[in-house]
This record gives sequence, C-alpha cells and structure tokens, in this order.
Amino acid sequence: MVNLEGTKDKMAKGSWVTYRPEIKIHDCTIRDGGLMNAHRFEDSFVRAVFDTLVAAGVDYMELGYKTDKKLAAPADFGPWKFCDEDDIRRVIPEDKQGIKLSAMADAERTDYHNDILPREKSILDCIRVATYIHQIPTALDMVKDAHDKGYETTLNLMAISTVRDAEIMDALDTIAKSPVDVVYLVDSFGALYSEQIRYLTLMYLRALEGTNKQVGIHAHNNMMLAYANTIEALIVGANRLDATINGLGRGAGNCPLELLISFLKNPKFHLRPVIKCIQEHFLPLSKKIDWGYSIPYLITGWLNEHPRAAIKVREGSNPDDYLTFFDQMVEEE
Amino acid sequence: MVNLEGTKDKMAKGSWVTYRPEIKIHDCTIRDGGLMNAHRFEDSFVRAVFDTLVAAGVDYMELGYKTDKKLAAPADFGPWKFCDEDDIRRVIPEDKQGIKLSAMADAERTDYHNDILPREKSILDCIRVATYIHQIPTALDMVKDAHDKGYETTLNLMAISTVRDAEIMDALDTIAKSPVDVVYLVDSFGALYSEQIRYLTLMYLRALEGTNKQVGIHAHNNMMLAYANTIEALIVGANRLDATINGLGRGAGNCPLELLISFLKNPKFHLRPVIKCIQEHFLPLSKKIDWGYSIPYLITGWLNEHPRAAIKVREGSNPDDYLTFFDQMVEEE
Repeated sequence: MVNLEGTKDKMAKGSWVTYRPEIKIHDCTIRDGGLMNAHRFEDSFVRAVFDTLVAAGVDYMELGYKTDKKLAAPADFGPWKFCDEDDIRRVIPEDKQGIKLSAMADAERTDYHNDILPREKSILDCIRVATYIHQIPTALDMVKDAHDKGYETTLNLMAISTVRDAEIMDALDTIAKSPVDVVYLVDSFGALYSEQIRYLTLMYLRALEGTNKQVGIHAHNNMMLAYANTIEALIVGANRLDATINGLGRGAGNCPLELLISFLKNPKFHLRPVIKCIQEHFLPLSKKIDWGYSIPYLITGWLNEHPRAAIKVREGSNPDDYLTFFDQMVEEE
Repeated sequence: MVNLEGTKDKMAKGSWVTYRPEIKIHDCTIRDGGLMNAHRFEDSFVRAVFDTLVAAGVDYMELGYKTDKKLAAPADFGPWKFCDEDDIRRVIPEDKQGIKLSAMADAERTDYHNDILPREKSILDCIRVATYIHQIPTALDMVKDAHDKGYETTLNLMAISTVRDAEIMDALDTIAKSPVDVVYLVDSFGALYSEQIRYLTLMYLRALEGTNKQVGIHAHNNMMLAYANTIEALIVGANRLDATINGLGRGAGNCPLELLISFLKNPKFHLRPVIKCIQEHFLPLSKKIDWGYSIPYLITGWLNEHPRAAIKVREGSNPDDYLTFFDQMVEEE
C-alpha cells in the first residue's frame, strides 16, 4: 500500500469535516458592482441583495463608498457612491436583521472627518479604508478616526501585485500597531496565482501575530482564480472573505458568493437564497451590464495591469476583438 | 521586519522564475468538445484547432474516441466518435508538424484488438485508455495491447471523486506494474477542491515513484476550479496537463488552454495563436453550443454527481431555471 505520510498540507488551518466559526463573509455586491454602473442600483435591487444576504447567513454587507462630494458630483452618480444615511435607511430596515453594514472610504477621496458620522448616529457598523501603498499614513489616520468614532475598521491594501515584498512588510509592521480590526490582501488586478496568495496570506498572518487582528482576502476573477484564491487564503488562515453575488464587480468581477457558500461548512450559511436571487435579479442585470471573466481580462491580469483598458474594450463597439487588444497591450509592455 | 521563514510552499516542485521542461500539454478540445455535438465538427474547424495547437507549442492533440461501431451507429455521430485513419488523414497533414496525436479508448466500449492498428500503420502516437475503477483489469489489458502495438499510453482513471482512497491506492499499486506511460487523475464531475487535488496528486506520485511514469491531470470547470486545480496539480508534480481551447468540453468544460499557457513559463508555449483561434472559431461556436461554468454545473459539482442532469437543463427550454434544478437535485440526495 502507498505510504501517504507527509502528503497532508501542513500549512492548512482546518480539516475537511470541521469548520472555523471565526470565518466571516463580507459581501461587496453593491459596492464593487457599483463600479460598473456609476452606483446606480434601484432601491428594490439593493433590498433584494440585502434580503438574500440575510437569508444566506452572510455576516457583512457593503453598500458603497463614502466619496467626498467635492471630488465627485452627486448628479453624476447613484446614491451608493456616497452612502448618505438617508439613502441607506430608505432601503435597509432599522434592525438590519442580524447583518452588519459597511461602507468603503478611499484614502484621499473621502472627507472622513465630516462625512463619517459617529457610529451611534449611523446605521453603518464598519468602515473599510481602501489605500494604495503610498497612502498608508492617510489611511491609518482614517482608521483611527473611524475607530475613535466607534466603528469596526478594516484596512484594504490595494494592488499588492505591484508592490515589493519589503514595502508590504514595512506597511504591515506599521499597520500592526494601529487599532484596525482586519487587514485585507487585495488582488485588485486579478494577477495573483495561488502560490502567491498562499505566501502573501502567511506573510500577513506573521506580521499580525499576537495582535488579535484578522486577515481578509479580496480577489478578482481576471484569470478565473477569484474563488480558488479565496479558498487558498482561507485554507492557510484568512478569516474574512469578500465575495459578491454572481461575481458581480468591476471588470472580471469578484469571488462568486454562491461558490464560496457551497464550499464553507458552517451550517449558518445557505446556498439556496443566493441561487434564487441570481435567477431573479442577476440574470436580468447581466443583459444590461457586462461583467465576469473574458479574454481581455485574462490579458490585463496576465500582464499585472489595471483592468481599465479591458473594461473599455468590453464596453466598446468591438468587445470580442481579443486579438487587437492582445497586440495593443503586448506592444505597450 | 516580518520573519518569513517557513512560508514557502515546501511541497512545490519548481520555482517562479524557472520552468520544468518535462511539463507537457495534452489538448482535448476536439475529443471532450465532441461530447457536446455528437462529435460533429467540420473538417475546417478541426484543422483550425490543429494549426492553433502547433503554433501554440502544444505537445499532444486528442481527436476523439475509438468507439466500437457495434455499440454506436456511425450514422448517429460525427467521425470523431471513431477516429478512423481516413478521417484523421483527411484533416491532419502527414508530417503532423511536431505535434503528437492521440485518441481515447473507453474501457468496455472499444474493440481494441481490431480497431486499434499497429502504430506503424496509424497516424496516431498515443492511446489514452479511460476507465472507471471497476474496469481496471480491462483497462490494463487495453494498455498492454496498445503498448505492444507501439503506442505511448495513458490510463485515465475517471470519476475519482466518488472512489475511496483505499481503492484508488489499490488501483495505483496495480497500474504501477503496467507498461503505461502516464496515469491521469480525472475529476470527471468537477467536484474536487485544491486541497483534494494536492493530496491526490501526491498520492499518485508516491504510488508511481521509481517507475518513470508521469502523473497527469484532467479537470472540469463545474465549480470554476478547472484551471486552478490544474495548476495546483502541476505545482506539486503533475507533468501532463489536459486543457481545451476556450475550455470547450462536456458541460462546464475543461481547463482553458489560454489560461494554462498564460501561466506556463516554458518559452515554447505561445498565447497569441490561441486567442486568435478563440476569436475566429470559438465565438461563433458559442452561439451554437452551450458550454462553460453556470449555476446548474455548480450544483452537480457541489453534490459530486455526474453533470448529465445539468447538461439536460442547459440544453432544455429553461436553461436558467436554476432554482427548480437546485430543489430537484437536493430533493434527490
């Protein structure tokens, strides 16, 4: 008989027949999806997503951004670009039915001192600060502000596929001393492979050891790896997992919530409501907005570039002219 | 600074900046894709795939099955159900331009003594024997027959997500003593996760240690993991990788060749010809045949069942009635 000693993954945190109750799902359907329609979702759509997430046992729902109205004119966007209290309360019931709400605050694009209310005056529970590596000092001030106002906080370090390890480690050393609750590994360009996700997740966990902070993962599907990379990160210890219904999100989209829930073994999660919602609300939406894996996104992910050029192609008059796009992108390298 | 000792994947066989020249790609576009159109591809389509694979540097091309004509009436199928010499030679040039050709022979569905010619009389280079666990004795006789006739051989053990470890190990012990060149891990139902792929690949490698046999991986995309699982297997040591252009294949399809080539670092592989072929030949085909990831396939993969019920839904009049399908399938469990 074959000797199987040493074939078990020594880095895996859990086992196949148990689950880690500390694993939480953070749904970003409305927030990340809003990047594809200038945040113009009907109230009924947002409510359907909320009802679905409650029924599915999802822990957090992200509604949109807290963008500074001096930087973006409200007339040009739907309400979820700003997440005003009144807009949220118009759609979400006061008791929130057991789910926590978050909004994203971009470093240098948020008037956080004024626009983020003290938690007791807000329906929001969590502020997620999104930052590029060079904005870390601003981001940490935003985290402190939100923490002092009573919110749960996360710090989402974006586009790390373009950042050197030494800088990430430097950033993590600083972040470890902040009051932030969760530190996110964000593969903004959908450019990372499972080996890199594993390595980076372990790097984050090491840097935050003993701080009681959690590591989160936010993946994009440019190379059809958003879901695979999300479970790779969770296997080695990430406890906060971003996903979106039907993978709705910028460009190639995100880790599909339905796949993630089918994988997780905590009996509090339920697949059926998500499938129902996809059929009733996302199939019609997919006729109006183009998102999800396609060849142009593979090309930008492979080249480790922002997906904006691919989005432009997919929204243009020749969305399937893959070869011209390939030649252009490789030429520019 | 963070201590990164021990974060590297100790089970990984290669590094990021080298490649393993022993890794070979086995394209199954026409063979697995043929399951979606009764093997009725135009000659010009098959030739376009051949030309693409040659230009892309792919090692093997699989054309179809060697099905016993007493079991399947030629009038009911296209030529690639049988792979007669004349049909192959009508499409593929005599010199084969550096690519090797294979056909699949299903255990108990192939009149192998008669229908598989001595290699010197055939344009084929490789016979791949597909078998369920209970057909192993037949499969091994088929391997021996093909090997004695001069072919390279593979043994593709199907549907292992439904087989107990002890039986797989038993099978591997026997297979290790056969003359077969490559032993394939086949996730027929698209039901396996990366951890299971890793574990099984290592099990196969252990069982075949010292035999000079290679391990292959054939994945399906029911849970959007075909590509991720293929690279998981290759990372820990699988050297023969199945893929299909644009993921064409039964139901949710296979590991997309374009993604696999974008990952592999051997400079002999080229991405551009595959992208060109997708645009010119697979986009038109996708208007006629439905393949690729969708919710019904997620459901059968999740339940570890054959995708036939999902294929039926996708080919029926209500291909997007996910919820009815979910309820039916869960009810039957």
